[in-house]
Amino acid sequence: MALIVHKYGGTSMGSPERIRNVARRIAKWYAAGHQIVVVPSAISGETNRLIALAKEVSPDPDPRELDVIASTGEQVSVGLLAMALKDLGIKARSYAGWQVPIITDSAFTKARIESIGRDRIMSDLAAANVVIVTGFQGMDGDGNITTLGRGGSDTSAVAVAAALEAQECLIYTDVDGVYTTDPRIVPEARRLKVVSFEEMLELASLGSKVLQIRSVEFAGKYRVPVRVLSSLTDPLMSLSVESKSGTLITFEEDEHMEQAVITGIAFNRDEAKITLLGVPDRPGVAYKIVGPVAAANIDIDMIIQNQSVNGTTDFSFTVHRNDLAKALDVLKKQVKESVGAREIIGDANVAKVSAVGIGMRSHVGIAAQMFETLSRDGINIQMISTSEIKISVIIEDKYMELAVRALHKAFELEAQVGGAGLTLGA
Amino acid sequence: MALIVHKYGGTSMGSPERIRNVARRIAKWYAAGHQIVVVPSAISGETNRLIALAKEVSPDPDPRELDVIASTGEQVSVGLLAMALKDLGIKARSYAGWQVPIITDSAFTKARIESIGRDRIMSDLAAANVVIVTGFQGMDGDGNITTLGRGGSDTSAVAVAAALEAQECLIYTDVDGVYTTDPRIVPEARRLKVVSFEEMLELASLGSKVLQIRSVEFAGKYRVPVRVLSSLTDPLMSLSVESKSGTLITFEEDEHMEQAVITGIAFNRDEAKITLLGVPDRPGVAYKIVGPVAAANIDIDMIIQNQSVNGTTDFSFTVHRNDLAKALDVLKKQVKESVGAREIIGDANVAKVSAVGIGMRSHVGIAAQMFETLSRDGINIQMISTSEIKISVIIEDKYMELAVRALHKAFELEAQVGGAGLTLGA
Repeated sequence: MALIVHKYGGTSMGSPERIRNVARRIAKWYAAGHQIVVVPSAISGETNRLIALAKEVSPDPDPRELDVIASTGEQVSVGLLAMALKDLGIKARSYAGWQVPIITDSAFTKARIESIGRDRIMSDLAAANVVIVTGFQGMDGDGNITTLGRGGSDTSAVAVAAALEAQECLIYTDVDGVYTTDPRIVPEARRLKVVSFEEMLELASLGSKVLQIRSVEFAGKYRVPVRVLSSLTDPLMSLSVESKSGTLITFEEDEHMEQAVITGIAFNRDEAKITLLGVPDRPGVAYKIVGPVAAANIDIDMIIQNQSVNGTTDFSFTVHRNDLAKALDVLKKQVKESVGAREIIGDANVAKVSAVGIGMRSHVGIAAQMFETLSRDGINIQMISTSEIKISVIIEDKYMELAVRALHKAFELEAQVGGAGLTLGA
Repeated sequence: MALIVHKYGGTSMGSPERIRNVARRIAKWYAAGHQIVVVPSAISGETNRLIALAKEVSPDPDPRELDVIASTGEQVSVGLLAMALKDLGIKARSYAGWQVPIITDSAFTKARIESIGRDRIMSDLAAANVVIVTGFQGMDGDGNITTLGRGGSDTSAVAVAAALEAQECLIYTDVDGVYTTDPRIVPEARRLKVVSFEEMLELASLGSKVLQIRSVEFAGKYRVPVRVLSSLTDPLMSLSVESKSGTLITFEEDEHMEQAVITGIAFNRDEAKITLLGVPDRPGVAYKIVGPVAAANIDIDMIIQNQSVNGTTDFSFTVHRNDLAKALDVLKKQVKESVGAREIIGDANVAKVSAVGIGMRSHVGIAAQMFETLSRDGINIQMISTSEIKISVIIEDKYMELAVRALHKAFELEAQVGGAGLTLGA
């Protein structure tokens, strides 16, 4: 008998029939003797509907009140799922974030979980209940309703699993695992049976949409084994098959069977590049540039500063594409004059492509192979950034898909099926 | 400066524009220096939508989980209204029932309010906030979400007003007050400027849909002055006019200016009549009949037992029409044999018509005048029930509108405009 947390996405909760299927799947796990805590998302489209309604009333909705409204979608879901379970003869109890309680900070619309109460859930589990907890929401120290931001239900599920010391957190979604890259771009993309926590963190941060990055951070911090798997398979499929399906995110290097140098190719079309030309190369200049942008609540991703020539340098960084106009405004009003930059250029037509792999640590030449592959297809690299286990490049966005396909093939990611060394494709 | 509770119905919250109008109305009261607590209903149709969704998932939804779902409609409303107020530059904070807290018993879907916390609201008011509290919902002693049942937001508003010792509770709705009867049946029906609490209680219990009866009971218990008025008038109309509009429910006999004998004619088409024929007239027989029906959670309204003839009697009572089949089933299975009734008859084609008036106490002959009026139109009376301030009759339902019109005219209810004794109509 194990304590398992199940998380179901909005598509899995998308209709009464699908909700009943989720209940059947849970019933199967419950019948096998497991203790189950479920974190369902809002019905697909519901959070968008609520936010649109709020914006109809107030174009720039107050964040505290937006959370009051947006959190109701998950509350409806937990009630519906509890009903469906009871109809299958299973004891079930639903809880909103404040009832657990899931305590967060007070950053409305993007709160962070600080603690989760165990007692209520554990005593319900001990009484043979399935416990259903709202995702996405919590309560701050003053008793205000908060939400965790988009995709927050993944984080809720992993945090609940950490608090309860669950054996595994199963993230049921509409894809059947984590792939070497997006199969819509590379049909030969292959599902990974196992991916390391560090790789998953890079893949999520680089735009792979399977898991919210904060949920991966949580999994890493508390070492929660997370498995991503499909909610669209037969809910009554054999438990032994289902419990080994999907992709396991692991912390054990030796569990990491597929010792490829590169695990996957990630990409992100949501960034924009900003360059300040002719910045005098003085101490403190980077802070003078980045400080006001961060103060305006704009996240910065890559930052590049080149060697100075004749006492001036060019300073580039990337922001979310939606923040480009705001960032340029801040720079022109608060930064340009104070740092003495010659010119400020914004460019939204960029994409980031990254090669990720824990095996990269012990292999030289990966960067060279990546740059060579891109140059062979005539793709110019605008910015480069590296970490221990990833290399990212910024390129013109129209070359993004070409770059992903070329790198996927160059690193033979389609070839590692069952470790048999088969090479698919040309 | 006064502390005033405003309650807005679902129609008043029915669109973003209407929500902004509610905010403008509140802003006007706030600008006049009043402390305002607002209890808005769910957007019209929303509670029905949520319950229908629950029934799609589970035909007979678990009551605890149904409350988890149904309570979200009011939560969305308070958030939207707070946003609209903030857009007018007014400080506002919304609270769900559990945050206030509004503590209820654990009777899911029909909980009763037990206590209301004052501290959070009073300190927000002291800091010049408009406070917006969800109607319809609360939390039981174990921290479960509860709802008060249909129309429960009226009760929430009056209960909040009682807890805060508000000067007045204004119930804004889509009618402009309490009428002598339903103007859709009697076009000459007249709005009452003042109605006594006892009369309002009878009018509500007899089917007048302006206020939920439990809210009137609450108003009586805590002597909360309640005013029913229209939310559809210009939100910027003069405050001195608006604050005297509608119908005031009062506890002061001398405020009750319009000393008519009869205040209004109420009616109710939702009842069904059950008669047990040939019941042996023994002590305890009434309990043997009514006990099992009440145990099946069926509310009983009028009960009539006639003088016995030859040791047997006929026993009649009315139930809600929706409960008729269930009540007949209980009686046939659990009662018929044990009390030795000859026959059990159910009749859904009945209506109740009632004359209500506090002046009735000191006038004889009202009953006679009522029965004479009905007989003149050939309407047969099936059951009669009286209290200090009302006389109710059960008649065949097809005569209901005729009876209401005849009684409204017989008691000259259209004639009392301004006490001038004008008789409208023929």
